[in-house]
Amino acid sequence: MSEAREFKYVGTRSIRPDGFDKVTGRANYAADLDLPGMIWGRILRSPHAHARITRLDTTRAEALPGVMGVATFKDFPAVSTEEFQSGEGSTALNDLARNILADDKVLYHGHAVCAIAATSEALAEQALDLIDIEYDVLPPVMDVADAMKDDAPLLHEDMFTEGLEEKPSKPSNIALRFELKKGDIEQGFKEADLVIEREFYTPTVHQGYIEPHACTVRYDNAGTSMVYCSTQGHFDVRAATAKLLDMELGKIKVVPSEIGGGFGGKTTIYLEPVAMILSQKSGRPVKMVMDRDEVFMASGPGSATRNWVKIGAKKDGTLVAMQARLCYEAGAFPGSPMRPGVMTVFTPYDIENAFVEGYDVVVNKPKVAAYRAPGAPQSEFACEMLINEIARELDMDPIDLRLKNAAREGTQTLYGPKLKKVGLVECLEAVKASDHYRSALKENQGRGVAAGFWFNIGGPSSVSINMNPDGTAILIEGNPDIGGSRASMQLMAAETLQLPLDDVKPLVGDTDVLAYSGATGGSRTTFATGMATIQAAEDIVRQFKERAASTWNVTPEQVEYANGTVTNTAGDDSMTVAEICAGADRTGGHISGRGNINARGAGPSFAVHLADVECDAETGRCWVVRYTACQDAGKAIHPSYVEGQYQGGAAQGIGWALNEEYIYNEDGRLENPGFLDYRIPLASDLPMIETIIVEVPNDFHPFGVRGVGESGIIPPLAAVGDAVAGAAKINVTELPLSPPRVLKAIAEGASA
Amino acid sequence: MSEAREFKYVGTRSIRPDGFDKVTGRANYAADLDLPGMIWGRILRSPHAHARITRLDTTRAEALPGVMGVATFKDFPAVSTEEFQSGEGSTALNDLARNILADDKVLYHGHAVCAIAATSEALAEQALDLIDIEYDVLPPVMDVADAMKDDAPLLHEDMFTEGLEEKPSKPSNIALRFELKKGDIEQGFKEADLVIEREFYTPTVHQGYIEPHACTVRYDNAGTSMVYCSTQGHFDVRAATAKLLDMELGKIKVVPSEIGGGFGGKTTIYLEPVAMILSQKSGRPVKMVMDRDEVFMASGPGSATRNWVKIGAKKDGTLVAMQARLCYEAGAFPGSPMRPGVMTVFTPYDIENAFVEGYDVVVNKPKVAAYRAPGAPQSEFACEMLINEIARELDMDPIDLRLKNAAREGTQTLYGPKLKKVGLVECLEAVKASDHYRSALKENQGRGVAAGFWFNIGGPSSVSINMNPDGTAILIEGNPDIGGSRASMQLMAAETLQLPLDDVKPLVGDTDVLAYSGATGGSRTTFATGMATIQAAEDIVRQFKERAASTWNVTPEQVEYANGTVTNTAGDDSMTVAEICAGADRTGGHISGRGNINARGAGPSFAVHLADVECDAETGRCWVVRYTACQDAGKAIHPSYVEGQYQGGAAQGIGWALNEEYIYNEDGRLENPGFLDYRIPLASDLPMIETIIVEVPNDFHPFGVRGVGESGIIPPLAAVGDAVAGAAKINVTELPLSPPRVLKAIAEGASA
Repeated sequence: MSEAREFKYVGTRSIRPDGFDKVTGRANYAADLDLPGMIWGRILRSPHAHARITRLDTTRAEALPGVMGVATFKDFPAVSTEEFQSGEGSTALNDLARNILADDKVLYHGHAVCAIAATSEALAEQALDLIDIEYDVLPPVMDVADAMKDDAPLLHEDMFTEGLEEKPSKPSNIALRFELKKGDIEQGFKEADLVIEREFYTPTVHQGYIEPHACTVRYDNAGTSMVYCSTQGHFDVRAATAKLLDMELGKIKVVPSEIGGGFGGKTTIYLEPVAMILSQKSGRPVKMVMDRDEVFMASGPGSATRNWVKIGAKKDGTLVAMQARLCYEAGAFPGSPMRPGVMTVFTPYDIENAFVEGYDVVVNKPKVAAYRAPGAPQSEFACEMLINEIARELDMDPIDLRLKNAAREGTQTLYGPKLKKVGLVECLEAVKASDHYRSALKENQGRGVAAGFWFNIGGPSSVSINMNPDGTAILIEGNPDIGGSRASMQLMAAETLQLPLDDVKPLVGDTDVLAYSGATGGSRTTFATGMATIQAAEDIVRQFKERAASTWNVTPEQVEYANGTVTNTAGDDSMTVAEICAGADRTGGHISGRGNINARGAGPSFAVHLADVECDAETGRCWVVRYTACQDAGKAIHPSYVEGQYQGGAAQGIGWALNEEYIYNEDGRLENPGFLDYRIPLASDLPMIETIIVEVPNDFHPFGVRGVGESGIIPPLAAVGDAVAGAAKINVTELPLSPPRVLKAIAEGASA
Repeated sequence: MSEAREFKYVGTRSIRPDGFDKVTGRANYAADLDLPGMIWGRILRSPHAHARITRLDTTRAEALPGVMGVATFKDFPAVSTEEFQSGEGSTALNDLARNILADDKVLYHGHAVCAIAATSEALAEQALDLIDIEYDVLPPVMDVADAMKDDAPLLHEDMFTEGLEEKPSKPSNIALRFELKKGDIEQGFKEADLVIEREFYTPTVHQGYIEPHACTVRYDNAGTSMVYCSTQGHFDVRAATAKLLDMELGKIKVVPSEIGGGFGGKTTIYLEPVAMILSQKSGRPVKMVMDRDEVFMASGPGSATRNWVKIGAKKDGTLVAMQARLCYEAGAFPGSPMRPGVMTVFTPYDIENAFVEGYDVVVNKPKVAAYRAPGAPQSEFACEMLINEIARELDMDPIDLRLKNAAREGTQTLYGPKLKKVGLVECLEAVKASDHYRSALKENQGRGVAAGFWFNIGGPSSVSINMNPDGTAILIEGNPDIGGSRASMQLMAAETLQLPLDDVKPLVGDTDVLAYSGATGGSRTTFATGMATIQAAEDIVRQFKERAASTWNVTPEQVEYANGTVTNTAGDDSMTVAEICAGADRTGGHISGRGNINARGAGPSFAVHLADVECDAETGRCWVVRYTACQDAGKAIHPSYVEGQYQGGAAQGIGWALNEEYIYNEDGRLENPGFLDYRIPLASDLPMIETIIVEVPNDFHPFGVRGVGESGIIPPLAAVGDAVAGAAKINVTELPLSPPRVLKAIAEGASA
C-alpha cells in the first residue's frame, strides 16, 4: 500500500446506487414482501418480568376459524434431542431457542411465549387473547448490582459462573468472569502521584433502528424454503434457523431486504424460525412484523453497565496504572459484550500496568444484542471521564494528556497484539488544531473531549463479478448494505477493473448465490468484503489478459491492461473490454470472477470527539451546541459515507449520553417502549456534526481501508458527559444526563 | 469417455427437484408475480391481415382516468437513429421492433399496433376501444406458393431477395434463397432405376405451450430494471430488450419464471420491451399477459411449407440421387427455419449426389418462431414419405432400405462436417427388433416408419456451485428448466462432486448471478450446461484437494478425493467435505466453483419412430393405436426425462400429422385461435407411447451426452402420414390428416 497511490474512483463522492429507490419510497424493506396465500403470525408475550409458566393451553385459540398454526418452544426439533436436554449442546443455541420462545419460564417483560398464524394479522391478534396461560410470578432482578448479590433471585437455577479459578458451589446470575492484566498494577499505583477512582453507570439503550424486525417465510417440503427478512447477516440467519430447526443449510434461502438500520441489533434472530414453524404447520407463507413496542421490549438492546475505574498518574501526566471492574448486564441470557468492554477500556493508552476484570450478568431484561462497537462505549466512557478529571487535576490540556500517553505503532495492547500503524496521535493533533478546539465557550457551556478505540475485524467474505457481453459488470456481494457497501464495492471494483463506475452494477446477493459472507458488522465490510471485491476484480483482469493472449497467440505476460483496454506488448494489437466480452464465446466462454476470502489484517480505527454543551440550569436540559467527530479511516473509499458514519455514531452516542434509557417500573415492566418516551436525538436536537477524516493507511488492505462504522459511537458518552459536567457544574457518573438527573445533580451540588 | 464407466447417479431416475411445487400448484409461472403499485398493459391488435395504418390517435384513450401510459412503435429509441432509419442497422432488430409494435403497416391478423397501461386489466381493455385508428386495407397473401408469384402483393416494398447470383431488379416476398449440393445430381438420377418426386404441404402449426406469454416489468431509473417472464433464454430476453430500448445489459435483470412450455416459441420476445416502455412512462411496474387467442394470432408459430422432393434409387435399394426444393413461410418478417430444413432434409442418408434449394418467404401470417428442431420436421417429412414409397415400389422392408443407406460415422453431410459416431443404425436395428415391429396389424390399420435427424448444438453456458459451510452445495445454472435441467445438473454435479444427490440443490439463476448462458433450446442444455456443471464441480474438487493439502502441508497432488472424503496419500489424514467446508475460513475463505464455457462437440441424435394408425373410413377420423419412439441419447442422464422428451416429441408430431393447422378465412383472419378449434392431441387421443433409449455415447461429452429434445418431433409426421396412407388407402401429400382431408382423399381415391 503506497500512500502516494493515485485513485480514479476510490475517494470520490459517487452517487449512491440505492439512493433513487430509497428517496422515491420504492425500496423494499422486510415488511414489504407479500406472497400468494400468505398468512400472518403474531406473538403472545409475557406481561411479567420473571415468572414460571404453569399452564399453556392453545385449544380455544386453535379453534378460532382462520387460525392455521401455533408454535411454542416444543416445536424446535432440537428440543427433543438428548444433546439439548442434557444441556451439553451449544448453550448459545439453547439460549437462542429459549429467547425466541420461552420454555418453562419467562425472563423479561415481553418475552415471547407462543406464536399464532392466522389468515389476517387482526385474527392472529384476536387468537392470542384466546390462549389460556397462567403464571407463577417470581421476583425480578433488574440491575446488574442487585443481580450479583449473593441472595439475588436466580434467573437460571442451573447456571454456574464460568471463568473462576474454582468451580463454584452454587448457581449465580453471574455467567462469566473474565480478566486481563499486564505489568504490576499494585506497583503502578505506588508510583502514581495522583490516583482517582469512580464507578459509572450506563443505562440499557436501544439501537433505535427505524425498521422493526420483520420477515416473510415460506417453508418448502421440497427443500427450497425461503426467508425474506431485514438482517445484517443473512448467512447467519440461515445458519441459526437451520440449526434450530434441524434443516440443511442449502435447503433455506435467506434473502436480505433493504435494511432500515441495524447497528448490531440485526445480527441475531427473533421471528424467522417461528415463522418457519408456522409456515410448515400451515402450508402457507407466513409474515411476521414486530410492533414498535415489541422491538423495544423483546429485541436485543445495548447492555447497561456499572463500571468502576481507577487510574494513577504522575505529575507530568504520565499514566502509570489503570484498573477497572466492569459489570455488564446480559439481559435474560448470558452473553453481554463484557469481553470487548474489558479488551477496549484502556487501549487508547500506552500503559505499563493494567488490570481489568469483567462480569457478564443476567437480569430480567431482554437479552442484549450487539450495538455499534459492542461493549466499548460503556467501558471507555468510564475511562475517558477519569482521564479528563486527571487532566483537570493536573491542570493539563486533556488532548496533551492523551498525546503524552497515546497508543501508537508498537504499543502492547492489554488484549494481545502489539498495535500496527494507527492514527490516534493524528486524530488528537487534528482536533487540537481545529477551529472548534480553539473557539471560546459561552456562558453555561462546557467542553468535553474523548477518545475511542475499536478493533475492527476481517473475516469471511465472498464476492462474484459477472462480465456482461457488452463489457459492463455485475458485482454481487453477500453483505446487506447498511452503510453504503454497494457504493464502496462499486468504487473498489471500478478502480480495480479500470472500468467506468457506472458500468459496474453492485448488488447484494442472497444466500444461494454466494459461498458465504459474514455479517455486516464489526466495521468489517468495507475492509473484508472490499478485499474480496478487489480479488474478484483481479481475477477478471487476469482473464482479460488470458483471453487477449489466446486471441493474439502470445503469453498473458505479454499482455498489458489499462483503462478498459488490453494491449499486446509483443505487437500492436489492442482490444477493449467490450470487445473481449462480446467475443468471449470464441475464447472459452463468458467471464466471471470470484473472491472468496477470510480477510486478515483489519486495522483499528481510533476516534477523537469534541463536544460543546449548553445547560439550562432551570430545567436541567442540556444540549449540544457544537460537535466535531474526528476519526482515522485508513482510506475513505466514499468520504460522504465515512462522514455519515462519523455523524451517525456521534448522534447515537449523544442520545446515549443525554436522553436514552430503558425505564422499568418496580415490577420490571418496561414503561417507555416507544420513540415518544424513549428519546433518540432528532435532527432538531443536534447541530451539524463537523467531521475530520484522518487517513493513516492500513497496510494490510490494498487501498488502506480500516473500517469506520463503530469507533465513532465510543467518544460521545464521555465527551458529552464531561461537557455537561462543565456546563452544569456537576459531577457526572451516571447516564443519561436527562433533565431530571441533571436537575437533581445541580440541587445536590448546591446543597453540598 | 469410456463406455464402461460406472455411474452412481447419472442414469438414475431421481426425484424431480421441481416436482413438489408443480404438483401442489405452488410453482410460480410468468403471470404469478404481482408487485406493489403494479398496473396492467393490454395491446390493440390489427383486425386485418394486411393494411396500411392511416391514422392512429390515442388522445381519447389517454384521457380515460386510470390510463397511465401508451406505447407505440415510435417509442423504440432506436427508431430515431440514423442507423435504424437507413435500414443499415440490424435487419433482425428492425423486424423485431416492427413485429412487437407495427410501424406504418400491419402485416397479419393480430399484429400489435399500440399498447396501453392502466390501473386494471379491464380498464386497459376499455381504453383500447378509445383508440382512434384507421386502416387502408391491402390484399393479403396467405400461402407460400402465392407469395412467391411474380405479381403477388408485397409485404415489404423494400425487400429484395438475398442469396441470388445477381442482385434482383425488383422487390419480392422471397427473402432468401439458399442451396446446398454435393456430387452430380443429374448424373445421380441417370444412374437410378427408380425416380420418384412429389410435393408435400405442411400447415402453420403452433407449439401449443399451455402457458401464455406473460411478464411483469419494472423500469428503474437508477439502473436496476427487472423483467420477470416466461422464457427459454433470459439472457437473450435481456439482450433483445436492452438493444430495442438502448439500455445497458447490466441495467436489466431478467428473472425467468417457471415455464409452462416453450418448444422454441419462447426464444423471442413480444411483451417485454412494451411493458418496459409502459413502466418507464407510468413509473409503475407493468404486467402483461396474453390471452390464448393472442398467443395463437400473434406469437410465433411453426412454419408452413411446400416442399418438393425427388429421389432416385437403384433396384437393390441403393439411393443414388436426392433433390429438394423447399419453400418455407416466414410469416410477416423474414426468418423461417428454411436453412436448417435444407441442411437436415437428407442427412439420415449416406448419399453421393444431392442438391437442395430453399426459399424463405414472407406471407401475411405471424412471424414464425422456432418450434422443436426448427425446419426439420417439414423437410424430413417430405423425404421420409418418399423413402417409404420407394421401399414399397422396390418391395423392400422400409427399415432395411434405411439400413442400407443409413448415415454413420464418416458420412459426409450435405451441410458440412463428416459425421462422428452416431446411432442411426442402432436405432433402426432396435426398432426392427422390437415387439411392436413384429406385431400384426388389424383391419383398417396402417404402419409407418420414419427416421429423423437433428444436429444438436453446444454454445455458451455458465454454472456456479457454492459450497455451504455444512458441506452441501448449491448449483446455479442459467437455463430455464423446461425438460428437467435442474434434475440433470443435480445428477451430473453429484456424480462429479461425489456427494449425495440430495446435498446438491439445483437452481435456475437470473441474469445477474451468472455470466451468460445461451437459451434452453437446440437440445443444448444437458450437453452444454452439463459440461459447465461438470467443469464447476471439478473446480470445487480441485479446491477440496488444495484446502486439504494446505491443512496437511502436502501438495495437492498428494491428496486424493473420493466419495466426499479427501485423504492424504503421504500420511493417514482424511477429511470430509463437511469438515473442509466448516473449516474453509481457516484455509482461505469459503469455496465456490465456476464453469464458464462455450461447449463444442455436440453430437447429433437420430430418432426412428414406428406408428400404427387406424382409420374410420366413414368419418375420416384416424388415430394412433400403437407408437414406438426410439432415439439415441448418447447417455441418458435421467432416463425418465429422456423418455418424456421422446413421448412429448412424438405427441406433438402426431398432432402435427393428424390435426393441427392454422385455418385462415379468405380475408386472412385466423378462424381457430383457441385450443377448442386448434386440436392438439389430448391424453385421451393417444396410446401410451413406447420408448427405446439407444445409447451411443458422444465422445465429446464427459458422460457421453448428446441432447434429446428435438429429434423426436421429426419422424412422427412421416411415420403417421405413411400409416394413414396405409390405413385409409390414400395418397398422403398434405398435412394435417384431419377427418375432412382424409374423407376427401378417400372420395378422390374412390372416384379415381
